[in-house]
Amino acid sequence: MAVGAPSVFPLAPIDGIRVGITSAGVRKIGRRDLVVFELAEGSSVAATFTTNAFCAAPVTIAKQHLATGNGVRFLLINTGNANAGTGEPGMQAAMQCCRALAAQVGCSVEQVLPFSTGVIGELLPAERVIAALPSVLSDLDPNNWEGAAHGIMTTDTRPKGATRSLMINGKTIRISGISKGSGMIKPNMATMLGFLATDAAIAQDDLQATLSRSVHRSFNSITVDGDTSTNDACIAVATGLSGVVIDSLSRDAFENALREVCEELAQAIVRDGEGATKFVSVRVSAAQDEDEARRVAYAVAESPLVKTALFASDPNWGRILAAVGRAGVQNLDVEGVTVTLNGTVIATRGAVDPGYTEEAGQAAMAPEDIVIDICLGRGSAEATIWTTDLSYDYVKINADYRT
Amino acid sequence: MAVGAPSVFPLAPIDGIRVGITSAGVRKIGRRDLVVFELAEGSSVAATFTTNAFCAAPVTIAKQHLATGNGVRFLLINTGNANAGTGEPGMQAAMQCCRALAAQVGCSVEQVLPFSTGVIGELLPAERVIAALPSVLSDLDPNNWEGAAHGIMTTDTRPKGATRSLMINGKTIRISGISKGSGMIKPNMATMLGFLATDAAIAQDDLQATLSRSVHRSFNSITVDGDTSTNDACIAVATGLSGVVIDSLSRDAFENALREVCEELAQAIVRDGEGATKFVSVRVSAAQDEDEARRVAYAVAESPLVKTALFASDPNWGRILAAVGRAGVQNLDVEGVTVTLNGTVIATRGAVDPGYTEEAGQAAMAPEDIVIDICLGRGSAEATIWTTDLSYDYVKINADYRT
Repeated sequence: MAVGAPSVFPLAPIDGIRVGITSAGVRKIGRRDLVVFELAEGSSVAATFTTNAFCAAPVTIAKQHLATGNGVRFLLINTGNANAGTGEPGMQAAMQCCRALAAQVGCSVEQVLPFSTGVIGELLPAERVIAALPSVLSDLDPNNWEGAAHGIMTTDTRPKGATRSLMINGKTIRISGISKGSGMIKPNMATMLGFLATDAAIAQDDLQATLSRSVHRSFNSITVDGDTSTNDACIAVATGLSGVVIDSLSRDAFENALREVCEELAQAIVRDGEGATKFVSVRVSAAQDEDEARRVAYAVAESPLVKTALFASDPNWGRILAAVGRAGVQNLDVEGVTVTLNGTVIATRGAVDPGYTEEAGQAAMAPEDIVIDICLGRGSAEATIWTTDLSYDYVKINADYRT
Repeated sequence: MAVGAPSVFPLAPIDGIRVGITSAGVRKIGRRDLVVFELAEGSSVAATFTTNAFCAAPVTIAKQHLATGNGVRFLLINTGNANAGTGEPGMQAAMQCCRALAAQVGCSVEQVLPFSTGVIGELLPAERVIAALPSVLSDLDPNNWEGAAHGIMTTDTRPKGATRSLMINGKTIRISGISKGSGMIKPNMATMLGFLATDAAIAQDDLQATLSRSVHRSFNSITVDGDTSTNDACIAVATGLSGVVIDSLSRDAFENALREVCEELAQAIVRDGEGATKFVSVRVSAAQDEDEARRVAYAVAESPLVKTALFASDPNWGRILAAVGRAGVQNLDVEGVTVTLNGTVIATRGAVDPGYTEEAGQAAMAPEDIVIDICLGRGSAEATIWTTDLSYDYVKINADYRT
């Protein structure tokens, strides 16, 4: 129940990054649910986090540890339990795990960033995580990215990874990344979880700016169900061990590659969206500003009526127009709006296009990948949001999740 | 597939109002799909309409005709076709129907208000409506409200009506109303369609103000799927034939009764929401202002994850907190938030309540009617939004609607 081709593994290993995976039994015995990233000393680390007011304990702690500027050495990630909505006991559980890891590897507790994903509202069983630390540390290896992509999955049906390499000043640098997420997906700073690393050297501030711009155009441009998670986080690490320093000349090339990795990972989340049978790109163009374009795109991408029509492969352009019409665009002239479905013009001037036929609409809706183009005809800004349809299986997955 | 008790019929007839119903075969042969209200001369008429930029042709025309101030004499309502997204041909079709009715009854075309509901994007077959006018006019009768409630249904599974009577200055006045709606429900000015009438006399301006306030607290406080229709309209008629004039002394009593009728009709729409198995009241209290309370209530009421948990009768308070957390409340102190489910406190201080048990949560979620109380702990404003769960049948109904 996923749309299109899965991610291609293995990913390129990144010099200075080692990854370990094990089964801690956080929620289910025998499932790979604990992942550790070891970062070379001196790595730059940038991050974006959820804007949900109820952010989880690990998000709060990861932010605090990052802010100390002490140099991150380890990422500690568990699935099966989000440690969210757990109050002060949740904070203590996350700190216990960080302290135990720091003690075993000989770094300070601030050099460990914790991440959790899974069920909300149950206390993290810190003792199980701590008991599994020797096992996960003994597994550390540069070639473990695919295992990590498996190890961070919850309702995901397949692992998500992407990699790019590019030449800078005659040397090759690499960027690899993994992500997880399938439901509760409308990231607002980052996806559920994304971990990226490069062997390029880039200053912390530059890495943060590059990551933030890339996340805006990727993880922050997807929605499955409009629900922003309490645990969203995206981390980018630059180990510098390739010896290549990103400077003003190479910055654009590096950022393009990083954004491509982010886009591929973000789209992989949508393709694996809960119950998804369609991968849908909603492109809004000729808007007055980007905010307006995004608002219209999200109104269409999150409309349950549009999404059920997509599930039915029904070219129900009336529902698309209705969603555009309620998106709160000031003084929208409906006469200027054109809607195109996979290249077939379906609506112009606020009504069905004179050349449209139901047969052409059906044919346009048949593929798994659907592009809805909405031209607002009032400016030059644009935005693209990626989403899924709404199927029986979305309801089934989320009605059954805890039982 | 509807929640709770159906509306009670018959409704009290309103002196000065006659109603006719017939089958025009707009979409399906033999289905009651055409309704006419005849209004006594001199009636006051107030109205609220959709704010969707793509409003349907009949909405545009009804607004224009009302604005002439010529005195409305007839409401002409069809189902099976919304005449929305139909451009200029749609406007002409609606006007043809109005003209034909005006000619047969001997009034001016501006004294006819048209209303349509049903499939979006197909031209209204005006000739079928016009051919059925003699039949619907011959059916006019003061006691036909129940038939009209049937005649305006689309995906509704049951007719919706409400009635109140009250004593003013020793005389009885009556208010009756009907509504329709089941999907594409997040009215923003009015419901899909609502028609109310009273035999009290009330000035046009007062009636409009009373209706607008009542609609805000009823039809504009419900959501099934967050999709605002292109055809929403709510009409209130005051014939004055009871001889009772609503003045400053009786205004509050009258408005309370009108609002009660609106609330009952709005809640009936939610109870009949597409695929509904739960009727859910989301009450937000202790907010800084009403707008904030409504924003939080809508975020919870429209969260697919909260709605699927409701379908599963799963007391998944984590999803409720997550929805509150992403509602965009500035500087929300999660320590001050309390969530109560049907009287059982489930979350306090941003975490599960110490006294909460899963058994108590399950018991609270078992009934068909669910009240989610969210105390934000930061002010004195409040709001209540009514909604449904999200079930397999919602997907089924909307994936199959046109096929």
